[in-house]
Formats: sequence, structure tokens, C-alpha cells
Amino acid sequence: MSGQTNAADLLHIIRDPFVECTHRGHVAIWRHGEGLIAGWGDVTGRILPRSAMKMMQALPLVESGAADAAGLSDVRLALACASHKGAAIHTDAVTSWLADLGLSEPDLRCGPQMPSDEAALHAMIRAHGAPDQRHNNCSGKHTGFLTLSKHLGGGPEYLEIDHPVQRAIRAAVEELTEETCDSYAIDGCSAPNFALSLEGFARGLAAYASAGDIGGVRGDAMSRLVSAMMTHPEYVAGEGGTCTRLMRTMHGRAAIKTGAEGVFGAIVPEHRLGIAVKIEDGATRASEAVIAALLVGVGVLDPTHPEARTLMHGPIRNRRDIVTGHMELARGIAGWGL
Amino acid sequence: MSGQTNAADLLHIIRDPFVECTHRGHVAIWRHGEGLIAGWGDVTGRILPRSAMKMMQALPLVESGAADAAGLSDVRLALACASHKGAAIHTDAVTSWLADLGLSEPDLRCGPQMPSDEAALHAMIRAHGAPDQRHNNCSGKHTGFLTLSKHLGGGPEYLEIDHPVQRAIRAAVEELTEETCDSYAIDGCSAPNFALSLEGFARGLAAYASAGDIGGVRGDAMSRLVSAMMTHPEYVAGEGGTCTRLMRTMHGRAAIKTGAEGVFGAIVPEHRLGIAVKIEDGATRASEAVIAALLVGVGVLDPTHPEARTLMHGPIRNRRDIVTGHMELARGIAGWGL
Repeated sequence: MSGQTNAADLLHIIRDPFVECTHRGHVAIWRHGEGLIAGWGDVTGRILPRSAMKMMQALPLVESGAADAAGLSDVRLALACASHKGAAIHTDAVTSWLADLGLSEPDLRCGPQMPSDEAALHAMIRAHGAPDQRHNNCSGKHTGFLTLSKHLGGGPEYLEIDHPVQRAIRAAVEELTEETCDSYAIDGCSAPNFALSLEGFARGLAAYASAGDIGGVRGDAMSRLVSAMMTHPEYVAGEGGTCTRLMRTMHGRAAIKTGAEGVFGAIVPEHRLGIAVKIEDGATRASEAVIAALLVGVGVLDPTHPEARTLMHGPIRNRRDIVTGHMELARGIAGWGL
Repeated sequence: MSGQTNAADLLHIIRDPFVECTHRGHVAIWRHGEGLIAGWGDVTGRILPRSAMKMMQALPLVESGAADAAGLSDVRLALACASHKGAAIHTDAVTSWLADLGLSEPDLRCGPQMPSDEAALHAMIRAHGAPDQRHNNCSGKHTGFLTLSKHLGGGPEYLEIDHPVQRAIRAAVEELTEETCDSYAIDGCSAPNFALSLEGFARGLAAYASAGDIGGVRGDAMSRLVSAMMTHPEYVAGEGGTCTRLMRTMHGRAAIKTGAEGVFGAIVPEHRLGIAVKIEDGATRASEAVIAALLVGVGVLDPTHPEARTLMHGPIRNRRDIVTGHMELARGIAGWGL
């Protein structure tokens, strides 16, 4: 059992005039070919990157040629990197992708999940229906796993740690992060999730940010995934989702991905930067505020844009729409810039 | 702007084999007539007790004679202390209570909120309906405010800080906690929420725990509220709610109340104890685990009861019902006992 220590104050939740809550955590900003250029908290302790590492889990799919062999569109590549909301556009895309593989919903191993897209959720409740595995926010990643498994001739239990799919992912993650993936935990979708140091995770994200310089089969594969995420942000999360909203706002200047329990990753190609955030207590409101502030700091997110402003500062409103408070980024994070 | 410092580690979230998250916070345990008998973190910093102080906000309702004048049942007193789920039993009770006062839903000032009770929520979605203010988890507290306002001859804007209802609450809270309520924030339901030190809040809860010894009009009023909460736990939260489940489990040995942003309060009459918990980051999973551990520590909650065990230790399961982790109370909290 390992973990991080010395978390830094990152965000205060203000219920005027009081500091009602404080979120602490860890941040690593890595420039490819250079190293750690900024850090808060403990950048060497290990984290579980959760869904924020999906673009790394999708790398063997592209790099192996499986994606081309299956004729995958950029929409499907974006879905392979997604934590989607289970909206119709997501489940329809997964359904047709599975069909093209000669597979169907029972071949997935992610488990069912209620959609978080409101329209899909309400439609399901009105129909007295139940979700299936296609509604799971990770079903695109899993369909990517199935695509790779077919290409590699793997068996149906593609989540087993020694399955060719997971072995390929482990090898890719180790090379990208320059770390040894000697342990893992089981994710919400049942996939292995490799433990990485926060700076190792940022190093891997920075490799994606330098995909053009890296070139070759790997560089091209990373470029394609980053481009797919930025070109189709509605497939990476969904309407209302933070990744979707912020990527739309940034117009192709960064690819970002949230993860459970307060993780956020960002890839900023124009600066060859990878940014990794882990909130100690797992709070999404804090990981979102901090990643927005850092994207402002590197110059790819306009701090006056309503999406950015709301994520960083609030306001916090109550059930009568009265403003009861706001958020304040901790010193250091608030003023930081490249 | 004030706040607390030096939060103590209270709960670790384990995704095996890693510590994935840590929750820090503050705990004060006060024995009436004696003082602070145990504390973690900072017990003197000010918190917003939020809904965990509802039994204090309900005291003038009973103490003034307004409750008797209106012939309030114990169910209605429990509702006045509740953060209910907007289930039919809650909204029906509020509707009839308002009618008995000659009032109706527009007289409330809490704002509308979707029910958190699944049956009520699904029924509303199926009917393409919208919630009104009776569904707000605080509508019982607000109907209590209206009952007191009528008794005191107050105007309709019963949430204004100088309204007789709020002045009476402020006076009661100051006497119970032996602190000056010189500032407040606006709660989710728009009511003023007075800032208190954590130990002051625990001191007030301990007064409730000693209501029988205190006696008189105040002691009787506190006894009635504590008894109403313990006798009708399904009106204090609702089916599935932690306050309801734990109070049922404890069979009248403690009254407990959760509050937003990681607050929990407990009243343990047999030991004249008030327990106040504030999680620094506002996480409910942590406030619930910690209050359960402390109730075990004072001997009123059976640690082997499934409700207690699950709140304190998990397990944490994923979407295929696989156990992916558990929770571990920090040293000190885990082993603490009277």
C-alpha cells in the first residue's frame, strides 16, 4: 500500500464570508524533453490515473494497426478515450462498432451503468428500462479493447492482466511514462488500472503533446488519438461534460481527460506539456477548477470565457438561485503561468 | 473570512492495494457539564453546521409554545429537524401541515428541489413533472419556521435575519452553544446558517443529550425534539438515508443528523455527549464513516451490524459488483472508545 504525502492546498470553497471547505492535492507539469517545470504537493507518490489515462490504454489499438484493420473512424477513436454519458450518440456508436466486429453487448466486460445524460436517463426511466453495458461510460474503451483483442487473436476475457490486450497496454504505458507498472488496481469498469507516479503520468501525457516530434508509428498513433479527442469532444464526455465543454472552448489547443477520484490529465501540444492533477480527497469540483486554472496558466484557455470562469470561481448558487458563495484557487495555482 | 487549520487524517479510501484518497477533518466530543473529552484536528475554528443544526433551529418552535398551539405531532417535529428525501410520506406530511396553518406551497421560501427518493424521483420523471418547494429536503424545517412565525405574528419573509423567527433561533443557538452568533452564511435552502466553533456546536448537541437533567421549558423542548427524531427516523431522512438507517439500528440510543459539506452531529443521551464532525473537503462518505466509528466508540452502535460495518469499512464495489477496495479509518479514530 503506497500513497502520496504533503498535499498542497489547491482550492477553497467559500460560503460567504466563510471558507467552508478546502481541497488539497498534487500537480505535476512536465515538458517533453525537458522535465518537470512546475509541481505542487508530491509529484513522486503513486496515483491511480483512472479514466484520465484512457488515451494511453487506447495506444496499442492504433499502434498495432488494429484500428486501421477495423477501419476505425476518428469518432470511434475518440470514444475509445472517452468517459461518455451514455447518450444516444454514444450508445448508438458503440452498438454499430460492436456489430462491425461481429460482436454484441454481452461481449463487453464493463458492467451496466445508468446513463448520466439526462435525456437518455429520463427516457430509460420512462420506459421502465434498465441500462446495459453499452451505457457504461467506459464502453468505448472496452470496444477498443475488443477491437485490439480480435486483431491480436486474444480470448474473450480481455481484462485479465495477462491477456494480450492488457500486456500491450502495460508495455505502452511503461514506455510512455518511463516507469515500471509493477502493480495495478481494478477500475470501476473492471479493467486493470496501472499505478504511476504523478510525474510519470505527466511525462506520458507530455509524450502525447510531442507526438509530432516523436513521429514514427508511435508518434502518428498518439497524434491521431489527440486529434480525435479534440475534433470530437462530444464523444469524449457528452453535452454538459467538462471535457467536452473545455475542449470546445480551446479549439484544438489541448486534449483533456478527467478521471474518477479527482484525477485530471491535459495534453498541450503547442508547449509539449503534459499536466497531471490528483485531488487528495477525490473531489471532481476541485480537479476541474485546478485543471482550468492550469490551462489558463499555459495560455490555451481564456480566463474570461464563461466555461473557464465558472469552473474556476463559481459562483455557487442555491435552490432559489441565490449566490451563496464562490470558489478561490489557492495562491500559487491562481497566479501561476508559463 | 475564517476557517479551520490542522485537519487530522480521518479516513483513507483504498483501491486495493493503494491508498487512493484521504479525507481529513475535525472532530469534537463534548460531555455536558464536563467539557471536551476528545478532539481531532481543530475544534476551535468555525464551521457552518448546515443541516446538522436543524434540531437547534427547531428549538424555538417548541420552546415558544408554537408547536403545542398548532398541535404538532412528533412526526411533524421530526420533519422540522429533517433533511428528507422528498418521498411521498414527506411531501404529504408537509402539505397537510401547511394546510392546517392555512398556508400552502407558495408560502415556503426554500426553493424547489428534485426528490432524492428514487420512487418519487422516477414518478416525477415519468409524469414529466417538476418539483416544488415541498420536495426541498428542508421543507419540514421551513414549515416549522412558518408555524413559529404565525405564533409570533411575524411577516411572510421568515428567512430575513431580523425576522422574529431568525432572531429567536439566534438567541437559542447562542444559549445552547455559549457562543456569539455574530455571523452567518446563506444555506442551500436560503435560511441563515450561523457559524459556530466545532466545539461550540458539540457543546450545543451535548445540551440536547442532557435535556432530562436541564429540565424546565427548554429541557422539555429539547427532549421532545430528540425523542421525535429517534422515534420517527424515516421522517428525518427517508428510506436508504444514513440518519434513518443508523437511528433505526441504535434503537433510541442516539439522535444523529447529517449536514451538507461533510458535517455530522450526534446526540447521545446516556453519556450526555454531543459529537460534531466536519470533513475539511466536504465529503459525505467520510463524515458518515467517522460518525459511525465514533458512535461505535461511545458504545451505542454495534460495529458488527451491517449498516455500521458498511459505512465504516465498505467494501467498495464496481459496476460488475466486484470488490475493488474498502475504507480504512485513520488510527486514533478507528480504535477510539470512551
